[in-house]
Formats: sequence, C-alpha cells, structure tokens
Amino acid sequence: MSQLPYSDTSHTALLATIEQARSAFSLYKNSSLQLRCELLQAIADELRKDTAALVAAAMRETHLPEGRLKNELGRTIFQLESYGQASAAGRWLDASIETRPNATGAAVNLRKTLLPLGPVVVFGASNFPFAYSTAGGDTASALAAGCTVIVKAHPAHPETSTLAAAAIDRAVLKLQLPKGVFAHVYGASFSVGEYLVKHPYIKAVGFTGSLLGGKQLFDWAQQRKDPIPVFAEMGSVNPVFLLPGQLHEQAPALAEQLAASFTLGAGQFCTKPGLLIAIQSEALSRFEQHLKQQVTKLIPVPLLHSGIANAFQHHRDTSLQVSSVSVLALSEQEASSGEGRPTVAAVEAADWLQHRSLQQEVFGPYTLVVRCADRAAVEAVAASLEGQLTTTIMANEEDLSQHSALIDLVKEKCGRLILNGVPTGVEVCKAMQHGGPFPATTDARFGAVGEDALKRFARPICYQNWPDAWLPAELKEDNPLRIARTVNGQLMQ
Amino acid sequence: MSQLPYSDTSHTALLATIEQARSAFSLYKNSSLQLRCELLQAIADELRKDTAALVAAAMRETHLPEGRLKNELGRTIFQLESYGQASAAGRWLDASIETRPNATGAAVNLRKTLLPLGPVVVFGASNFPFAYSTAGGDTASALAAGCTVIVKAHPAHPETSTLAAAAIDRAVLKLQLPKGVFAHVYGASFSVGEYLVKHPYIKAVGFTGSLLGGKQLFDWAQQRKDPIPVFAEMGSVNPVFLLPGQLHEQAPALAEQLAASFTLGAGQFCTKPGLLIAIQSEALSRFEQHLKQQVTKLIPVPLLHSGIANAFQHHRDTSLQVSSVSVLALSEQEASSGEGRPTVAAVEAADWLQHRSLQQEVFGPYTLVVRCADRAAVEAVAASLEGQLTTTIMANEEDLSQHSALIDLVKEKCGRLILNGVPTGVEVCKAMQHGGPFPATTDARFGAVGEDALKRFARPICYQNWPDAWLPAELKEDNPLRIARTVNGQLMQ
Repeated sequence: MSQLPYSDTSHTALLATIEQARSAFSLYKNSSLQLRCELLQAIADELRKDTAALVAAAMRETHLPEGRLKNELGRTIFQLESYGQASAAGRWLDASIETRPNATGAAVNLRKTLLPLGPVVVFGASNFPFAYSTAGGDTASALAAGCTVIVKAHPAHPETSTLAAAAIDRAVLKLQLPKGVFAHVYGASFSVGEYLVKHPYIKAVGFTGSLLGGKQLFDWAQQRKDPIPVFAEMGSVNPVFLLPGQLHEQAPALAEQLAASFTLGAGQFCTKPGLLIAIQSEALSRFEQHLKQQVTKLIPVPLLHSGIANAFQHHRDTSLQVSSVSVLALSEQEASSGEGRPTVAAVEAADWLQHRSLQQEVFGPYTLVVRCADRAAVEAVAASLEGQLTTTIMANEEDLSQHSALIDLVKEKCGRLILNGVPTGVEVCKAMQHGGPFPATTDARFGAVGEDALKRFARPICYQNWPDAWLPAELKEDNPLRIARTVNGQLMQ
Repeated sequence: MSQLPYSDTSHTALLATIEQARSAFSLYKNSSLQLRCELLQAIADELRKDTAALVAAAMRETHLPEGRLKNELGRTIFQLESYGQASAAGRWLDASIETRPNATGAAVNLRKTLLPLGPVVVFGASNFPFAYSTAGGDTASALAAGCTVIVKAHPAHPETSTLAAAAIDRAVLKLQLPKGVFAHVYGASFSVGEYLVKHPYIKAVGFTGSLLGGKQLFDWAQQRKDPIPVFAEMGSVNPVFLLPGQLHEQAPALAEQLAASFTLGAGQFCTKPGLLIAIQSEALSRFEQHLKQQVTKLIPVPLLHSGIANAFQHHRDTSLQVSSVSVLALSEQEASSGEGRPTVAAVEAADWLQHRSLQQEVFGPYTLVVRCADRAAVEAVAASLEGQLTTTIMANEEDLSQHSALIDLVKEKCGRLILNGVPTGVEVCKAMQHGGPFPATTDARFGAVGEDALKRFARPICYQNWPDAWLPAELKEDNPLRIARTVNGQLMQ
C-alpha cells in the first residue's frame, strides 16, 4: 500500500538512522526525568497545534470519522503528557537503597534503579493511527524511559504518520536534543522490519498488529545473537460469557450493549468482543432476537483500507463455511467495496471446539455466538481458549456464585477481567492492564497502556559503593527529586 | 554423573509430575500471601533442622568446605524467610486502584495486581548446592509468587538435592497443601529438561548454569507454540577496571583483594572477577608482582566434580594457547586430579580484542590481566565486552573524573556496577540486582536475588467493575492486608 513519496527506506538509509539513534542514545539515556517530561509535553503541544491537519490526513487514510479521530488524538496527547509526568514522578524506577550492615557486620551501600535499554523500534497499528502509532503509547513510553525511538510508519497511513513524526521532530528541536532521539522510516515490505529488528544496536521492539506480523518480529528478535524483548500486541477474540441469570434478566440490554461494542470503530478495536458464549435457553433465543434487530438496522461501514476490507470478507466467509456455523444477523444493507457488513454468526460449542480456526480474530464488524448445551460445555470452551487481552463475564450475583470455577479458569487466560461491561474502551491509567498471555501479546508480564508501560523499556542496575556525585539523581542520599523510594526495606515518600 | 538411585526420571513419570503440578496450581494460585509466607518459613525450619545431614551430603558431593556450606545454607534459609515475608508484605504486587470517573464522566473501577504464571521448572546450579539449587532462590521466589515448582536435581549433587526436596515435602505436608506444589525429578540427559520446558503446562523456567545449557532452554521455550519466560543466569567474566591513580596508590592491596576474590569458592562463583583491565605502567607491573606473590603461595583446591575439573583444565589451556597469552602467576603446588590450580594469565589488549574466545568464562580459579597501551585501548576493551552480571571500577577521585566516558559505557553492559570492591559477595536484599544483559542472563529486566525476584513469576491482571467479595484481598476496598497501594494515582501506605 505504500506509495511515493512513501517508498521503503533503503537499507543504507536504515543503517544511518540506526547509527544516529544509537549515537543519540549515548546522550539521551542520561537525560533528567524532568527533561523527558518536557519533551513529551512539547510533543503533545505540537500535536495539539496541528490537530486540523492530522485529523484531516487520518480521515483520508483510515476512513475513520472525524469525531473518533479527534478523540483519539486527544487521548494520544493525554498519553504523552501523563507518561511524561509519570517519568518525572520517578516512582516507576522503584528506586531501592540498602545501607544497613550485613549479617557479618560488613558495610553495605547498594542502590538500585532502572536504566533505559537502548534504541527501540516501534511498529504502529493500522486501527489507531494516533494512539498506537507514530506518536502513540509505545513511542511515548520508550521516550519517557530514556530510550531513543525509530518508528516505521504504518503503510496504511503514511501521511498521518509523517505529520506526527514532524511534530515530534519539532519538539526534539525545540528542546535542543540530538536529532537521533526520534526517527521515522517507511516500509511496506517485511525486509525493512527485519533489518531494523536484527540490527545489534536495536535493544527492544514495540508492535501492535497481527499475530503473523508480531510473531515474525518476535522470532527474529529471539534468534539474534543477543535476544531482545519484543512487546507485540496481537490478536484477541475477547470472549464474553453471558451467564444464565443475567441473560434472563437483561437480554435486550445486553444485545444492545454488545451490538454497539462489536461494531465500534467498524469492529476494528483490539478489544472487540468477538465471541459470545452462553447456554442454550429461552433467554439466549431472546438475546439473539434482540441482537438481530440491532444488527439488521446497522449500516455497513468503511474499513481502514481495501486490504483490511478484503481480509474481513475473506475471514468472515471462511468462518461461515465451517460446518454448523450459520449467519444469525446481518445488516440489511449490503456492503459496498471497502466496507464491512456487520455480521453475527452462531455455532454449537461442540463444533466450535473442533475448529481451532474459529478462535482466530476476524478483524472488522463480526462476532460469533457459541451456543452451549450446559455449564460443562461453557467450561470446555473456556478451557480451550487461548490467551486474551480481555475476558468479560455478564452475570448477576447468583451467576457468580454458581460459576466460580469458570471465573477462576478464565483469569488464567486474560490480562483484564471485566464484569458486566464491554471490553472496548481502555482507560489510560496505572491500574489498567492492556496485555495478556500469548498469543494476545508476546510478553504477558507487561502492558501497553498506562504509566507502567514505561517499565517495558528499562532494566535494573545496582550501584555498589558509589559516592553521591556519581549516582543518578533518584539514588542520591538526600533524594533531590523527592520521589518515593525503598530505603532499608521501608517505603519512604 | 547421575547414578543409581538417581537415574533419569522417565517421560511417563515426568508427565505425571507435570500434571500434578498443574493440578496443585489450580489451588495454590489462590493461596493467601500469608499461607505462602508460612510455607516458606516451614521450608526454612525443615532445612535448619536438617543442617547436619545437608551439609555432610553437600561436602561429599561438591568438595566445598564445611564453613562455606554452612554459610550458604544459612543464606538459603534467610532467602526463604525473607521472600516469604516479602510475599506477605504484598508490596511486590504493585496493587493499583483507579475509581475516579474518566474524561467523559463515566464511572471507572479498575484494580490491578499480579497473578502467578503457572507451574515453574527450576534447574539448580552446581556451584551453589543450597542457595541456587533445590530449595534456592528460584524455588523460593516461584513459591512466594504463587507458582508450583518442579525442580530438576543437579546431577552433580543429587543426594543433597534429594535431602532438600524432602525438607520441602515435609513443609508442604505440614501445611496440608497439595503434594504437587513441589516436585523433584532427576535428569543427567538434556532430554529431561527438554521434556519439561516444552510441556504446555509449564509456564516459566529458572536456570543457573552454563551459557550452553541456558541458551538451549531459552531456545526451546521461545520455539514453543506459546513462548514462555526463561530466567537463565549464565556466564559472566565480571571485568575489573584498575584505573591508573588507584592502581598506583593501592597496588598491593588490590592484588591481595583480587587474588582472594578470583579464588573464592575455588573460583566457582558466577561473580568471579575473570578479567582485570589496566593501562601498562610501573603501577601495573607492581600490581602483577604482588598478584604473583599472592597466587604462588595459594594451594590447588578441589573443584565441584571431575567434569568441572576437566573443563577448567581444558578452558584454561585453550586460553593459554591463544597467541600472546602468557602465564603470569601460578600456585607453586601442582594440582592433583580433580583440583584446580590457581592461575593468572596476561594478554595485550590488541590480542584480547582479536580473540572473542577470551571473553568466555573459565569456570574455576583463573583470571586474565588485559594490558592496555592507553586509555583508548581500555575503552576499546570496554566497548567490546558482552553483557555481564557485574563490572567493577577500581578508582580514586581523579580516576573517576578522567574516566567518565568509560563508566558511562560499562553501565550499559552490566547489572551491578561496583566501585572499589570485589564482585564476589551478593547481598540478599531488595536493592540488589543479580542479573544483566545477555549473555549474562536471558532476561535483563529481572534479577535472581532479593525480593524483586518474585516478580519473575507473575503477570499483571486488571479487574474491572468487580465487587469486593470477588476481588483478591490486596485489591479489596478497605485494604484488609494493610499493604502499600496506588489509589487514584497516590501511593498509600
């Protein structure tokens, strides 16, 4: 999809970019937390100033509506500001100091903090052209952690990406930081990503996209002479368990809520509920009827680009060709070229269990109802689920007490467990976890949203016996940054 | 080296063990922090009671002296107690709660904590039969994190391992926990490790040993359908930079200190200083003379087992065969079979730079002086270093100000940076970092010593909209555990 003037960056140019990122890292790694905060604030300011042009470009390139894109840009700005502030607040460093003599009475002077990993490569998402792309969460958290960043523009929105990169460049210039703190390259072919991920100067990778793409980056990174961390957020079907009591009481409301959620952003959210699991009952029939009513009156929506529209059509059709999968509801209006037609399918649990392909995410406005004969079938479906970003339980009090085994089981499968809410909608805050067991991500121990995302791009270092003058500010004896630290086992604020 | 009755556990028995570990995990994952603390205390108590038998077995199997083994067992007991207490104190969970309405005014109820990963396989170390083996740091931190554990006994000390495993079994029984919380298997062949690491129920791996072994486990784990984390602590040469001023002032003291350090525990410490780097000078000559005096009068010491003695001999000789590497000092007394003869070699920096093999750890009482023509050569050596557990700078005030570029560079290469001390000796506390960039470990973002080691075996989960009754204790509204938490962005104690 890449087009002139956005043709693939040559390997020669990539090498120069990587060398510049490495060279800039030698300076930027020692930047004060305050300076990083100022940089992220300056990027936020530049994006805010350029809102009109950014939103216009993104509308052209992604077919997403203006309101959604404005909100997403606002969220992107908030991420930059809040991650910058989190960096400055310094709590993420978990600074720890030990100065008590050891068991043999010997003097001890150990001080631990985090060091940035090195130049980071970021591969942005197609579905969030701002919040998970060029100036998105991965870039913001890597810069906040003290890493330099090379972004590969997403080939589906190169113009939007170029505008966002220009905003970052202006902020870097304004703060008189070396140019290599941030760089922007293009690549529609895998070879650009391969070159970047395999280069020894690159020390971590952020990615949001498909399982195929993320897993390939992960494999390249793990096969390096020195393996490096890859934070790839990949597919998730985000199962929703509709438990009997709640379904009986709330069938119409649940149908309305879920119809809106699975079609939000044209079904192109990584947290889209793609699997609705319930026991067959009169209540489920009512729910399905209400869902049908909701979906019939929806209209087809343009997908991000023609490649995604074709893939949606293909994966939807492949899913519908599986024996016993049938269409339950369809928007009345047919889709034009490039659009996705909202679709709900249904399948028996026994068949779903036999077809692993039905676990794969269908990116776009599609969801699948899994009809279970009984609670045992519900639990069998839960047990066979792969790792997920989210899992949702729709339940009343009685449902909960009767399904504790199910709840206990699904905890092992997801990064966020929701009760009586939809999974779409990801708050940016410390208490959020946006991540989950493989294949939802390649590293379930970290998350991509909220200030803890910074921790992905740093590692601990312990300074032993160093005088104050040689310690980073967060470890100096008199705590000049006034940050929370653990001193001799006690948390001090 | 494995011998009857310690023959390799069959695949059938391994499978049963794994299934039991998985089954026990379903219960143990929900154990209270207090119960985990009690379990670790009970294991500590059982080990303490069995001190005489444990130390006697370890003396027979490792040739390490009684005093050292008693100390190491004491440290192992301290690890169990302190990790258990850290688990109960709950701060490692970094519990975070957000209940402020979001930007659109919608209600928010997000609560994040850590969940244990699942059954963990631990491969103990040969050189620390207690502290990094069966009841060592990996087992202690995995149990404290809520994981069940399968230990593969180190084939060099199966009897010691069996005694330690029996102590753990008694503790598990005493607390009426399911038997599968802990299991002990044997394996001298790679196939036992391969079977364990590749089994889908296994969710993380702890390892201490060689680069060859650790990297193999890492590769198997990353090539799984669902890759899992591997915390392998592998080789490290722990470079020591002897800067000119300090060397001039302290040559005899430095020689004495380093002679003791590189031969501590027969040179079988993972933090042994294996590379001494200095600029050629009169001071370096004096240092070398003093080192020679120290080393000449040392006596050869029995290595852990004959395999290690042979490997030491082989790697030492291979190193000495590299052009321009010469013996600088040697214990006067020749080594008998199974012993290691304390040896210091020397090489020119230019030659060292040309032979990557000289970066490899020689496990045993051997260290290499790298003679540099000038500061540029010192920096070239530093720049070409691989990842290390530790790096040491021996320097006075003036050295420090003249070598800031060197110090800045080596920070990127190590997990612990020491000023004017020896790297041997690892305090067990939160401020310690025992880890480092590849190939020192396979995951520099974590450490194997101190309470933060628990974090290796857990991942975040966010509970959205759950009522108090369904939340883990650390997330309940009234904080019944009285732990430090972040509530609406504020750290609360």
